[in-house]
Amino acid sequence: MRYKAIVSYDGTAYQGWQKQPDKNSVQAKIETALSRLCRQSVKITGAGRTDKGVHAFGQVFHFDTDKEFKDITKSINSQLPEDIRIVSCKPVSDEFHSRYDAKWKHYSYIINTGKFNPIQRNYAYQLGIDLDEEKMQEAAKALVGTHDFSSFNATRKDEIEDQVRTIYKIEVKRRGSLVTVDYYGDGFLRYMIRMMTGALIEAGKGKITAEDIQNIMGKMDKTACNYNVPACGLYLIEISYTNF
Amino acid sequence: MRYKAIVSYDGTAYQGWQKQPDKNSVQAKIETALSRLCRQSVKITGAGRTDKGVHAFGQVFHFDTDKEFKDITKSINSQLPEDIRIVSCKPVSDEFHSRYDAKWKHYSYIINTGKFNPIQRNYAYQLGIDLDEEKMQEAAKALVGTHDFSSFNATRKDEIEDQVRTIYKIEVKRRGSLVTVDYYGDGFLRYMIRMMTGALIEAGKGKITAEDIQNIMGKMDKTACNYNVPACGLYLIEISYTNF
Repeated sequence: MRYKAIVSYDGTAYQGWQKQPDKNSVQAKIETALSRLCRQSVKITGAGRTDKGVHAFGQVFHFDTDKEFKDITKSINSQLPEDIRIVSCKPVSDEFHSRYDAKWKHYSYIINTGKFNPIQRNYAYQLGIDLDEEKMQEAAKALVGTHDFSSFNATRKDEIEDQVRTIYKIEVKRRGSLVTVDYYGDGFLRYMIRMMTGALIEAGKGKITAEDIQNIMGKMDKTACNYNVPACGLYLIEISYTNF
Repeated sequence: MRYKAIVSYDGTAYQGWQKQPDKNSVQAKIETALSRLCRQSVKITGAGRTDKGVHAFGQVFHFDTDKEFKDITKSINSQLPEDIRIVSCKPVSDEFHSRYDAKWKHYSYIINTGKFNPIQRNYAYQLGIDLDEEKMQEAAKALVGTHDFSSFNATRKDEIEDQVRTIYKIEVKRRGSLVTVDYYGDGFLRYMIRMMTGALIEAGKGKITAEDIQNIMGKMDKTACNYNVPACGLYLIEISYTNF
């Protein structure tokens, strides 16, 4: 039986989603929990990776097992630490693939423009500088659409062939001192959201405009964008399997 | 020179505000930082204690030092861990006393009525049960005013003589799945807010009413209230030195 699971996690204590030898990863924690529960080695396939310190409310993975459960969500959670929680876990068709079937992803990036907040230190970028969210929204227009995002990518060019991605929507919102940037797209390259957010922050300071971002993008060169922001402000919110 | 400082902290890693032998406390961290900075032993006096795991945005303390600083807030913060941040630090009259001069205090208690959220696990009570915030607000009427709060106190009766306190206002608000209870009063006994919040949650479930809370209060007995909630949802928001 194949299962599709949605998982939320606090990425603070982890080296990222992806299992790596001798490193603390979310994937390894879940595989250990599932293997213990199923009394056999269970491998899971995530819809995508999240980097060290990045959080998730809606990461998706799939796995196969023949074991039967009364309440599988509760069973897995009982084997997991409190910073990883299965939100739902349901049987799906054997053809379902968490990564290949994903249609679009929603990420949020949270910036605190106010004073350093110790409560949020691992959960929002503590920028401490006020931003003009309208200028950010305006500059974001340069990013929306289908583009070659090589300039907003930390992966070496030869590692990934196709660096063309489509961003459907970017929304910049303010709530008090918090500015949140929501990204909806068919996929994102490594560090892409953090580099784009870095550029939008410069726009919010009034230092660059949509045109400058367009120029950076036109270079299709991973050294073109010098902006980046910390992982702690980034959240994987949702992975959708229906068209945007 | 006497200084009044406002400090915010994430209480997760600490045994509470109060310095205790061999225990990790916020007070000890700040005294160590100040003593290092002033090159002499500096003691601080807090406006009140917060228990293990309780957070603060506006704890106040005072201390004396003859050392001169260019930017004292920045200097102290440079010696503190990131989970403790001085918000402001200003010279005051030598007569100022953080505890005795305080007129009222504002605390917030945050409850997540939705699914367990790993990001909030140390920052909001993960109740996971929906609450009727209007019933809570109604029940809170029994707590507002001047009362003997012995029934909402974890301290032994003989430890504190006067258990009469005045609550000026209680506000119950909802934002999505979060229900927040704000308390404004001239002072609070040990566990008082957590016990009152526990009672208000029962009211929000429809299990008790303002009348039941009045009955509990009338008993003036610390075994009368069996309700309590975890420390992680509690925040010391502000200590005010002017009348309410």
